[in-house]
Amino acid sequence: MGSVFGKHFTVTTFGESHGKALGVVVDGCPAGLELNEADIQPYLDRRKPGQSKYTTKRAEGDKVEILSGTFEGVTTGTPIGMVLSNGDQHSKDYDALKDVFRPGHADYGFFAKYGVRDHRGGGRSSGRETAARVCAGAVAAKLLQRFGVKVFAYTKSIGGIAIDSFDIADAAKNPLYMPDRQAAEKAGALIEQMMRERDSVGGVVECRITGVPAGLGSPVFDKLDANLAKAVMSIGAVKGFALGDGFAAAKATGSENNDAFCMAGDRIAKASNHAGGILGGISDGDEIVFTAAFKPTPSIAREQRTVTTGGEEVTISIAGRHDPVVVPRAVVVVESMAAIVLVDAFLENATAKVEYLEKIYGIL
Amino acid sequence: MGSVFGKHFTVTTFGESHGKALGVVVDGCPAGLELNEADIQPYLDRRKPGQSKYTTKRAEGDKVEILSGTFEGVTTGTPIGMVLSNGDQHSKDYDALKDVFRPGHADYGFFAKYGVRDHRGGGRSSGRETAARVCAGAVAAKLLQRFGVKVFAYTKSIGGIAIDSFDIADAAKNPLYMPDRQAAEKAGALIEQMMRERDSVGGVVECRITGVPAGLGSPVFDKLDANLAKAVMSIGAVKGFALGDGFAAAKATGSENNDAFCMAGDRIAKASNHAGGILGGISDGDEIVFTAAFKPTPSIAREQRTVTTGGEEVTISIAGRHDPVVVPRAVVVVESMAAIVLVDAFLENATAKVEYLEKIYGIL
Amino acid sequence: MGSVFGKHFTVTTFGESHGKALGVVVDGCPAGLELNEADIQPYLDRRKPGQSKYTTKRAEGDKVEILSGTFEGVTTGTPIGMVLSNGDQHSKDYDALKDVFRPGHADYGFFAKYGVRDHRGGGRSSGRETAARVCAGAVAAKLLQRFGVKVFAYTKSIGGIAIDSFDIADAAKNPLYMPDRQAAEKAGALIEQMMRERDSVGGVVECRITGVPAGLGSPVFDKLDANLAKAVMSIGAVKGFALGDGFAAAKATGSENNDAFCMAGDRIAKASNHAGGILGGISDGDEIVFTAAFKPTPSIAREQRTVTTGGEEVTISIAGRHDPVVVPRAVVVVESMAAIVLVDAFLENATAKVEYLEKIYGIL
Amino acid sequence: MGSVFGKHFTVTTFGESHGKALGVVVDGCPAGLELNEADIQPYLDRRKPGQSKYTTKRAEGDKVEILSGTFEGVTTGTPIGMVLSNGDQHSKDYDALKDVFRPGHADYGFFAKYGVRDHRGGGRSSGRETAARVCAGAVAAKLLQRFGVKVFAYTKSIGGIAIDSFDIADAAKNPLYMPDRQAAEKAGALIEQMMRERDSVGGVVECRITGVPAGLGSPVFDKLDANLAKAVMSIGAVKGFALGDGFAAAKATGSENNDAFCMAGDRIAKASNHAGGILGGISDGDEIVFTAAFKPTPSIAREQRTVTTGGEEVTISIAGRHDPVVVPRAVVVVESMAAIVLVDAFLENATAKVEYLEKIYGIL
Repeated sequence: MGSVFGKHFTVTTFGESHGKALGVVVDGCPAGLELNEADIQPYLDRRKPGQSKYTTKRAEGDKVEILSGTFEGVTTGTPIGMVLSNGDQHSKDYDALKDVFRPGHADYGFFAKYGVRDHRGGGRSSGRETAARVCAGAVAAKLLQRFGVKVFAYTKSIGGIAIDSFDIADAAKNPLYMPDRQAAEKAGALIEQMMRERDSVGGVVECRITGVPAGLGSPVFDKLDANLAKAVMSIGAVKGFALGDGFAAAKATGSENNDAFCMAGDRIAKASNHAGGILGGISDGDEIVFTAAFKPTPSIAREQRTVTTGGEEVTISIAGRHDPVVVPRAVVVVESMAAIVLVDAFLENATAKVEYLEKIYGIL
Repeated sequence: MGSVFGKHFTVTTFGESHGKALGVVVDGCPAGLELNEADIQPYLDRRKPGQSKYTTKRAEGDKVEILSGTFEGVTTGTPIGMVLSNGDQHSKDYDALKDVFRPGHADYGFFAKYGVRDHRGGGRSSGRETAARVCAGAVAAKLLQRFGVKVFAYTKSIGGIAIDSFDIADAAKNPLYMPDRQAAEKAGALIEQMMRERDSVGGVVECRITGVPAGLGSPVFDKLDANLAKAVMSIGAVKGFALGDGFAAAKATGSENNDAFCMAGDRIAKASNHAGGILGGISDGDEIVFTAAFKPTPSIAREQRTVTTGGEEVTISIAGRHDPVVVPRAVVVVESMAAIVLVDAFLENATAKVEYLEKIYGIL
Repeated sequence: MGSVFGKHFTVTTFGESHGKALGVVVDGCPAGLELNEADIQPYLDRRKPGQSKYTTKRAEGDKVEILSGTFEGVTTGTPIGMVLSNGDQHSKDYDALKDVFRPGHADYGFFAKYGVRDHRGGGRSSGRETAARVCAGAVAAKLLQRFGVKVFAYTKSIGGIAIDSFDIADAAKNPLYMPDRQAAEKAGALIEQMMRERDSVGGVVECRITGVPAGLGSPVFDKLDANLAKAVMSIGAVKGFALGDGFAAAKATGSENNDAFCMAGDRIAKASNHAGGILGGISDGDEIVFTAAFKPTPSIAREQRTVTTGGEEVTISIAGRHDPVVVPRAVVVVESMAAIVLVDAFLENATAKVEYLEKIYGIL
Repeated sequence: MGSVFGKHFTVTTFGESHGKALGVVVDGCPAGLELNEADIQPYLDRRKPGQSKYTTKRAEGDKVEILSGTFEGVTTGTPIGMVLSNGDQHSKDYDALKDVFRPGHADYGFFAKYGVRDHRGGGRSSGRETAARVCAGAVAAKLLQRFGVKVFAYTKSIGGIAIDSFDIADAAKNPLYMPDRQAAEKAGALIEQMMRERDSVGGVVECRITGVPAGLGSPVFDKLDANLAKAVMSIGAVKGFALGDGFAAAKATGSENNDAFCMAGDRIAKASNHAGGILGGISDGDEIVFTAAFKPTPSIAREQRTVTTGGEEVTISIAGRHDPVVVPRAVVVVESMAAIVLVDAFLENATAKVEYLEKIYGIL
């Protein structure tokens, strides 16, 4: 269960890391959107391992194939099925781990729940599953362009090293996707140290969404930020989510934290954005800003204590090819999940008032 | 839209703060649970305003009435409908705010979305809606008792004042629900200062859930922590959610952050709990620990700048009866949402393996 | 479970026949619709018992009260909560039936499922639950008026007596809602005979929906007719559903059954309507026509054999006040369910193409 | 939208008849079920065209490939992704139909809804989509075996020729799946006549489900028969659904139609089964019996009048390879949809009472 996400733009993923293929079905994409594999591949490439010295050398082929839902390069309103075959699998690497529960991984919980598990590389719990999300996210991002919305995520910090300045061009230039060249260099050195120490490190991804009109999201359970929180927390290693000032808001006073409304020409705007672009669960027209905290990669080559499925205490060292930090490759996954949530909110909002329906169905 | 929460234990709330009544329907509660109003009222009483000098003097009657779903004090498996009438309404207090968008509130977004709004006290966006959630949460908590699960939330910090020690008995003794008597005193002084300054302050609620077996939650989108994040972020003033070490995990190394598995007698346990009881979206059998950051109450008596629905810049001062801090009354709301998520996960898990179905349906 | 219907216009009902109240929550009704109790009451009155000599003498008060979701007579986009208190209850009538399973009723299945049941008058399985649906259906019908859609149901046959001619005005003039005065008279005589014989009889309701544009419904699982079938089969006594020619189509040839498309002015139309207005699950712009077969009222005063909860074979005779035929009162229930399905399809269709979204969100 | 079916055992299909592939994702299948392609292929083979002289000569390869969700031949609880590549496509056959709306097909409605369509062979609206359902249905049927449930469908009538006797062995022996050899011969002759006349004919499928315990299904909207009706009406050519006596019940009296309960040993049973095994939406422990009316194949070689997308009236004759009757190949599709609904009901029922949860989670 739990492999379906979204109410209107419905994303269903399937596939294990070492099975035959990964796949995703997007149901509810409106008809009339130009779409082909070339729209999706660049997103996958940003997630792909082996792009830099900081990531695993695994070569995941990750060529997406659209199986359905488009005709002559345009979406038809029917479900868009996409698959990625699993290429370079070193399943043997995992034989030693068949009967142990890796610390920091879902192994034990998964086994407790289902009684069986595909132990090869995490199976369904592998970060590899996010490749399928990125395919759906690329479709969502393409659709958002039509609404003038842009989702942009980047690495805010790695370990204790946070960005100090913000140059959007920098983010694209370094393999860590940090919009601060100097911080990126320091973070690179930290990662190299971690690799030498056969350890790993965590970090924070920040995401900014521009062009969102006021009025998206629902006032109670389906608050826009609640849906973003779920979307982002559903990415494997995420341990925290914060909107706008986040936990700092808990220390502020109301007079500090409230953003005054003001007029910007004939448009309503805010004089500050502590809120992060969402108030009471509904977008306020301002930039949406949120952060996600990623824990360090749990697969480390250092020795760790754990237990076997038979209840024996053992010491393991996880061989294989693992990222010393997941954050840079996770940036596009955060973007993808955010884009999916935003599209869902746009579609939901289309029926918010009778006036909209009259625009669609004519004078009635 | 968006007033339905949960897949198996489905909670639908309705009602505005100044309408006739609030209500909630719980569909999917298993039959055979002893339940009556006396199980629910204590939860509502913890949320009720007017309990201390730190909360609004509004007297919300908040007597719950169960309209359906039980027979002779036992649930029948049919939807449990509950209503709370809205008693002491000072709707007039809001006349002055009819045409302005209050800073920090959903007013503007709500208006942008729907084109109409019940401006009296926030309407559907009011914190009062959470009373309906608490009714459903009390039912969930009653059910969780049958599984040996206990959900316990408390105030971790108010403004800059955080608890320094933890005495569970203390939490019940002070009106701030802080499990550290000295911190509670300091926080009380801070709140009084805020009241004098016609300002407000935020805080952090922490929640601990004990007795959860390993195996609850799903590996992909419906991760247990993702569902908790959505549940908690859907509470009005919450700006951040963190599981276990949360944002601190982003600064840690893998060797620090991984929790070693070990044997505790013949049971699998963990040597530490940085994870907060959930790994890869599935409970690991350890205590679940999360925090929620609440922003300061946006309704303050201080002067604030804002705009009217007509686009005019104005200055307002919000009269009426407002809490200087929402955290103490929100503690039970956090517990309620957590309990609902947990029950949903227990129900979902009942179909996770064929073995469970055989236990129910016999040898087949 | 299973008390929530619809994806976009979501209807949740609650309440047992002899509990405190029935209720319904409509989530997803667009904002800006004029709505008050006077829009709903006439629908309830058509369903109300005691209107003629052919129906039970039970006086169900059935005054609807809107608790939320409207402000100054207009929907606000928030959930519309409505309740009906249960007035004239003769719960004592059911004491004799406490431990027996009534033939033709859900008693046994309900008990097998839940282990407990509110035996008074069928509890949740009572036809009384449909009063809550009618409230939601009235809201749906009001919204459909804005789209120029009219849902009109009537009695097509009672026992072996079917209408032979069709005069829409007649349907409103006789208590059986038959659009053929002579058939109504014969059916009336049949019903009186049934009453004398302490028996009951079944019948068929037909429903016609005009003004539906081509394009509503989805091509696979959520076919418009599949959703109508579910909606109508979910009404207690319905045993069959047929669209257009229905079962007669199974005997026809393709050349007979296919409806030729033709032009009606500059509009695409069909030369016949064997299809009943839906092709491949999507409306074709023609009138939608379907029928529902209702079984005879299972509660009859005649002696019947059955068993007790303890497994003893007994003979019972059901006292109390029961309709000799449910069809006339069910007409408005069929209309209500159809209206709910249609509104859901209109809302779903609003996001079918990018072009519609551009109409809502402007040039993007 | 509308390509997802089921709440617990969730089936998502994708793919057009002349696209690259069809596929289906089953989310929610319990772990621990032995499953491989050999369990599914026989179901697909029953649906496959080209098996007899009565069906299209199209050779749909229809070799299913399981991409995910099993490990070492056992389900793991994760989504089961399956694909079928589209082999023998004569897309050119459809070039002539590019700009016309075929009578009896979804073409016009689909175009009205989405504005674009894959005209080749019906695209998403093609009967070919049901191959994906059959894959999911085979998984469901395998699971039902574990519960002792068997779903068995057959052809009840073709055109005016209905079965007169019932020999289950006969159904497997003739290509029409009729359990009456003599009727099958007559029906065969009728079909041959239709082929000569370049016409087609409809028919009725009957489905019997044995081994279902009392208590499955929900009392209100998710009645077991309502879900079966939706499932079956969502199959392309179905125009009517009837449970038990169906439309005949509308002519019966209560004393005729009610099934007396009686004891069969220490088990509660019914003396007759007019109800078709479901009362008030909940299974009563008896055999479930329903019928589905299929219209004649709309694609016929005879000349028909229709209009073009440009609004011109034209005459067409549909070349290509089409079944003169869809019923025999639809038998397994009906079985599949019924099996999916039954599994969903079994899973839903697992949380119906606290007692069940205690069996799973132990004494609590």
